[in-house]
Amino acid sequence: MSKNYSNKLSIVPLGGIGEIGKNMTAYAYGNDMIVVDAGLKFPDEEMLGIDIVIPDISYLTDNKQRLRGIFITHGHEDHIGGLPYVLKSLQVPVYATRLTLGLIEGKLREHGILDQSKLIPITNESEVTLGHFKVSCFRVNHSIPDSVGFAIDTPEGVVVQTGDFKFDQTPVDGIHADYAKMTALGERGVLALLSDSTNAERPGFTPSERSVGATIERVFQTAPGRVILATFASNIHRVQQVIRAAERNGRKVAIVGRSMVNNVSVAKDLGYLEVEPDTLIELEELSRFETHEVALLTTGSQGEPMSALTRMARATHRKVEIYSGDTVIIASSPIPGNEKSISRTIDLLQRIGADVIYQPGSGVHVSGHGSQEELKLMLNFIRPKYFVPVHGEFRMLRKHAELATATGVNQDHIFMLELGDVFEIQDGTPRVSGKVTAGAILIDGLGVGDVGNIVLRDRKLLSQDGILVVVLTMSKQTGQLLSGPDIISRGFVYVRESEELLDEANRVVAATLQRLMTDRVSDWSGLKMGVRDALTRFLYEQTRRRPMVLPIIMEV
Amino acid sequence: MSKNYSNKLSIVPLGGIGEIGKNMTAYAYGNDMIVVDAGLKFPDEEMLGIDIVIPDISYLTDNKQRLRGIFITHGHEDHIGGLPYVLKSLQVPVYATRLTLGLIEGKLREHGILDQSKLIPITNESEVTLGHFKVSCFRVNHSIPDSVGFAIDTPEGVVVQTGDFKFDQTPVDGIHADYAKMTALGERGVLALLSDSTNAERPGFTPSERSVGATIERVFQTAPGRVILATFASNIHRVQQVIRAAERNGRKVAIVGRSMVNNVSVAKDLGYLEVEPDTLIELEELSRFETHEVALLTTGSQGEPMSALTRMARATHRKVEIYSGDTVIIASSPIPGNEKSISRTIDLLQRIGADVIYQPGSGVHVSGHGSQEELKLMLNFIRPKYFVPVHGEFRMLRKHAELATATGVNQDHIFMLELGDVFEIQDGTPRVSGKVTAGAILIDGLGVGDVGNIVLRDRKLLSQDGILVVVLTMSKQTGQLLSGPDIISRGFVYVRESEELLDEANRVVAATLQRLMTDRVSDWSGLKMGVRDALTRFLYEQTRRRPMVLPIIMEV
Repeated sequence: MSKNYSNKLSIVPLGGIGEIGKNMTAYAYGNDMIVVDAGLKFPDEEMLGIDIVIPDISYLTDNKQRLRGIFITHGHEDHIGGLPYVLKSLQVPVYATRLTLGLIEGKLREHGILDQSKLIPITNESEVTLGHFKVSCFRVNHSIPDSVGFAIDTPEGVVVQTGDFKFDQTPVDGIHADYAKMTALGERGVLALLSDSTNAERPGFTPSERSVGATIERVFQTAPGRVILATFASNIHRVQQVIRAAERNGRKVAIVGRSMVNNVSVAKDLGYLEVEPDTLIELEELSRFETHEVALLTTGSQGEPMSALTRMARATHRKVEIYSGDTVIIASSPIPGNEKSISRTIDLLQRIGADVIYQPGSGVHVSGHGSQEELKLMLNFIRPKYFVPVHGEFRMLRKHAELATATGVNQDHIFMLELGDVFEIQDGTPRVSGKVTAGAILIDGLGVGDVGNIVLRDRKLLSQDGILVVVLTMSKQTGQLLSGPDIISRGFVYVRESEELLDEANRVVAATLQRLMTDRVSDWSGLKMGVRDALTRFLYEQTRRRPMVLPIIMEV
Repeated sequence: MSKNYSNKLSIVPLGGIGEIGKNMTAYAYGNDMIVVDAGLKFPDEEMLGIDIVIPDISYLTDNKQRLRGIFITHGHEDHIGGLPYVLKSLQVPVYATRLTLGLIEGKLREHGILDQSKLIPITNESEVTLGHFKVSCFRVNHSIPDSVGFAIDTPEGVVVQTGDFKFDQTPVDGIHADYAKMTALGERGVLALLSDSTNAERPGFTPSERSVGATIERVFQTAPGRVILATFASNIHRVQQVIRAAERNGRKVAIVGRSMVNNVSVAKDLGYLEVEPDTLIELEELSRFETHEVALLTTGSQGEPMSALTRMARATHRKVEIYSGDTVIIASSPIPGNEKSISRTIDLLQRIGADVIYQPGSGVHVSGHGSQEELKLMLNFIRPKYFVPVHGEFRMLRKHAELATATGVNQDHIFMLELGDVFEIQDGTPRVSGKVTAGAILIDGLGVGDVGNIVLRDRKLLSQDGILVVVLTMSKQTGQLLSGPDIISRGFVYVRESEELLDEANRVVAATLQRLMTDRVSDWSGLKMGVRDALTRFLYEQTRRRPMVLPIIMEV
């Protein structure tokens, strides 16, 4: 069983390359392997019916005897959301800062595997040695507190993985990125840098989260009635600013939406959120206050159908209604793909008479990811020999590579990897030495990976033109038709208005059967194929649609 | 049959209110009715399998004896795309400017109804009298030449409908909006203005289309290889600028994509596009030239799956490949909902090695719709007594209403209508007097309106978790099960990996049947319902999914 691995460093991205989300990177040296992050991503629009997507971890399970630990940079879904699935197949300790661990704990508890998991807190001062690896971390700024990057000391040299970061010069919690540690790493010499490319296409500097606070404060001062603010539940900095604005302007805050309630509670319990004792109230207490004395903090800033704000806008929320005179702040920018659902939510809120603050220029949102000047600053702090842009779609990675070149990284030292590429460094020489299994595992309900391309193709087909089921009962002895053809359709046409078409379809099937049986096509699969082809052709001619046709033969 | 309608003016929006697209407005006075525009819109993401959406024209067919004519403002799909369907149910003349009519002709020819249609050209100087209505038009700037707004003279006064417009101070074809006519209308006094709200949320002035030309020209000068430019096929101004840039820089132009070929040909034949005799070449001739001597003009700027550019990017275009060294210009901004498909196309092009110019700030696209300053200018030209914002989602209409108030329109004189609202003016007094049938007709293949909510709900269900068909053959005489239950699934799970689950499902159905038949549930529908409920429950417990379950009983 115990295999001996040669002494070279390999870095394998298992997620987050060529995509936004499901970040995961494996590092191996000799008989040791560690992993940074274990995220999920949300399904593309063609992944019909899929709930979430996680990285394919075949490579980790194949190497489980040398897997020593998983290090997590911060508590966002695209960095921790895959953990429950990973920990169900792999017994491996998880290292993260306190808030991140707090959020992970909630997740593992939901999945019923908290007790069997080994969670180890680290701080900015920790150093964790696991076989050939010595891992320390450094604070960065991001839209969630306690975010870190990792410096991974290996026999080949130090590799730095930034995690998601920006450089906020006026951070909400007053905690700055650890500039000294980053520059010290750069001074000592860094073998390779893997850095966040999310905003590589954006020029300049990302504004400080604190600038959002000023805007929120103004609204809290001037809004005549209630203020309802929707943002990402994990953006604890923003939650803090909302709470401060409320406290300074004599408003109570009610929290709405499961993930917002959970995150606020974890952050508060762990001391990452300062709240005066009587600021938070229950939804049920809202009616005890005047409208200008309250604010609601909620999820749904992306117009997600099941989220609290969307349900309020549609008047389907059990506890909260929107009234004319409310001021709604949508404190996020649309994640690509969500533009339309956000627009619909805004329209609904405005129709009710709410004042909605949402425009890009309104100052109620800033990104948590650094723009070009920050990415260059990171490159200049770390001054890596080799550079691998990560966390981004191809064009972002490419742009990041350009930025690296501009800061002086040798063009031949930049590696544009693909998922599963084995980036190897042996005796200082880098190369992409091969490819391991990597990709996406789709999760649908309780099913992990049981929905693949065939199922998705069928769902796509069904979603476009529906299905016609054709049932025939045939005699086992004589091969004669005993009953049918019966045609049942779903998602094809409104049956009551298309009786003629369906009657005609029935005649087409009957005629085809007649012909095939005269031609002595006696195997059932030949009959089915003949019926499917004839009916498909007929329906296309009549309707220019191609529903799925499913012939079923019952033998009696 | 001949009903007498009272003498009052009614204005009924049948499309384009609370939405972008399928613009259509009906005007009636006494026994006369006219319509402005007959557009389509593209389906929302929840309208699975739907090709296009047109306005419900029940109100027009109910009033066909008084319908005198349809006036079209310009040749874009959201203003002409519904015409073929309207003209199949209604014999009514269509009035439009020459280019617009040219584009309409192509459409009606495709639908095989050109011969039976009556198309009447109008110019900026025309005046068409139809019963109580006297209609004249005025030139506006838009992203297609020959765009006009209408001044509709009625016994109650003049109503102005702008159509889509911007004010371009340096138009590509040198043809300015007819400022004199608009201001003269304002001087004489206008009863009501219906104006385009698409960009009501954008501050400032929309840049001139000519500014795009300068950017394109620079790329044509400096690109080392081929230039491939994708834009909306109907944007003849932009096509003109591409052709000019090509001619000035010694490049030949090949046109790719059916709609681009059609539109260029119509515009060229009608004299709306100036092209030197040897500029255009066939795709087959491309190989005769050096790469820096050619350019391709194509569709697909929205990443539409079947469009030319998308197919080139995916290497599935029959005639054109993209090479490293090509420069691709995506000269459009994403229509909400298309962001992801455009991103994917850009990523694919960059992976091949093409240089892709697409950023919002890159100057390769400007809107065809006026921003806030232009909307206010229009309001100040026309100085209407009553104002109705049209062409836009609710928040755009509301913003436009605010702009109108700012220019001095009395707040009580602004009418925020909904589709089907009858906005009536009698003896100078306005009111919303009622509502007529209005809404969306869905077109799927050849089917017009045969896909409704039930079909869409089924498609949605099928798309999420697929379908399980359960077939039983029962004896007519004895009521006994002769064969089955057979379970066939599509789009649910990958069958080969879920045999156990499906076997167990089969046992659940068999046991349920047994129980129901012992309980003497002998009617088939009772059996079906029992089977459906039991199987649905079992599958949800096992998988947390809710596929459609379709029980079918065959009688022998």
